[in-house]
Amino acid sequence: MNLLDRLAQLNFQLPDVSRPGGSYQSVNVRGNIAYVTTQFPVWNEEFRFQGKLGDNLTTEDGYKAAALCALNVLAQIEGNVGFKHVEGLNHIDIYYVGDGTWDEAPKVANGASDLFAKVLVDKGKHSRAIFGVAHLPSNFSIGLTASFTLLSE
Amino acid sequence: MNLLDRLAQLNFQLPDVSRPGGSYQSVNVRGNIAYVTTQFPVWNEEFRFQGKLGDNLTTEDGYKAAALCALNVLAQIEGNVGFKHVEGLNHIDIYYVGDGTWDEAPKVANGASDLFAKVLVDKGKHSRAIFGVAHLPSNFSIGLTASFTLLSE
Amino acid sequence: MNLLDRLAQLNFQLPDVSRPGGSYQSVNVRGNIAYVTTQFPVWNEEFRFQGKLGDNLTTEDGYKAAALCALNVLAQIEGNVGFKHVEGLNHIDIYYVGDGTWDEAPKVANGASDLFAKVLVDKGKHSRAIFGVAHLPSNFSIGLTASFTLLSE
Repeated sequence: MNLLDRLAQLNFQLPDVSRPGGSYQSVNVRGNIAYVTTQFPVWNEEFRFQGKLGDNLTTEDGYKAAALCALNVLAQIEGNVGFKHVEGLNHIDIYYVGDGTWDEAPKVANGASDLFAKVLVDKGKHSRAIFGVAHLPSNFSIGLTASFTLLSE
Repeated sequence: MNLLDRLAQLNFQLPDVSRPGGSYQSVNVRGNIAYVTTQFPVWNEEFRFQGKLGDNLTTEDGYKAAALCALNVLAQIEGNVGFKHVEGLNHIDIYYVGDGTWDEAPKVANGASDLFAKVLVDKGKHSRAIFGVAHLPSNFSIGLTASFTLLSE
Repeated sequence: MNLLDRLAQLNFQLPDVSRPGGSYQSVNVRGNIAYVTTQFPVWNEEFRFQGKLGDNLTTEDGYKAAALCALNVLAQIEGNVGFKHVEGLNHIDIYYVGDGTWDEAPKVANGASDLFAKVLVDKGKHSRAIFGVAHLPSNFSIGLTASFTLLSE
């Protein structure tokens, strides 16, 4: 499967790949695992979905935010490793910022899980962690960290 | 070691295995690692230990909650992979929700660490992360994410 | 590269290696990965940088706190595995406790990223996750969890 063809087929577009703002890698490959730095709901250089779920953001906003994080993960993998080297997604950590009573995090996390399942099919199978944090950089409402197993050469 | 015999010997019972509520896997195997989705203190379908440590829940409640999360991790591994394929536990992340001043998280985390050590002995050796989150799905006070290394065939 | 020589060259000193306060390992090796338990800004047995960033602690304090966490990670790896067995750092999770409006977490995380880059060079390349938590054990402002890939024998 070619990732870009698959995305086009489903009418998804990849955002531009962000560059690291410090002495770390957006994607770090060690052995046969590619570790991806936390991705936020950024479209090219535009920051989206900042604030709190249940306050200025709805559950539907959160779903879209998580999907956009997932697209940024795919952009990083395609841009830094090449999806053709990927055996599959391992696990995702999803962080959310809520207003304290909002309790629809699993629905929001499905924004990322559904996208990985739809685009990557079997290679998109993953386990996940979801937890509500106190704060994310730049006031983002959602963040997503992932790792992938690479094909053995 | 047969996991079910070992649990019976120690008078532990495994809860029913929960099914994923979205397009993710409870356990995802890639290469020789099994990644387990966050487990919460659920006994079969009964949600337990909801609330905040230091508020409606004591440190002893938290210890039991962490142990119940650990039993759910074992239930997921046994049900989805089979413990006989496991080389050992890698690392656990423990999330807790406190009242803001409560500071006995390491004692609570021992609820999971002690259970893994007691039941799995050398295969239960693990490193851990513990941090206080703002919120967990369904108002749970504790969540636990784990991964295991599988035996090479 | 000998880690201790390299540290001496750069005028860094390793803190004493802390011992686990429960039935877990400071470093757990499974397959070719070494998983390191969360390290806090502790110098030998002295707890430092407790409190909240933006409140009693500045961004510069946070940078130093993250660097001290990173030194503790290196002390654990050297003391428990031996750095000569390390192929490289994989990924770091950095937790921070802020006052709710403070938003300089990436600068603080650079305290750890810069140290790993400076000391370990290519072996220090890593991806990272950063998120603001509600609380850390002992009121620490920063915590750092890491894993390393080991050289195949």
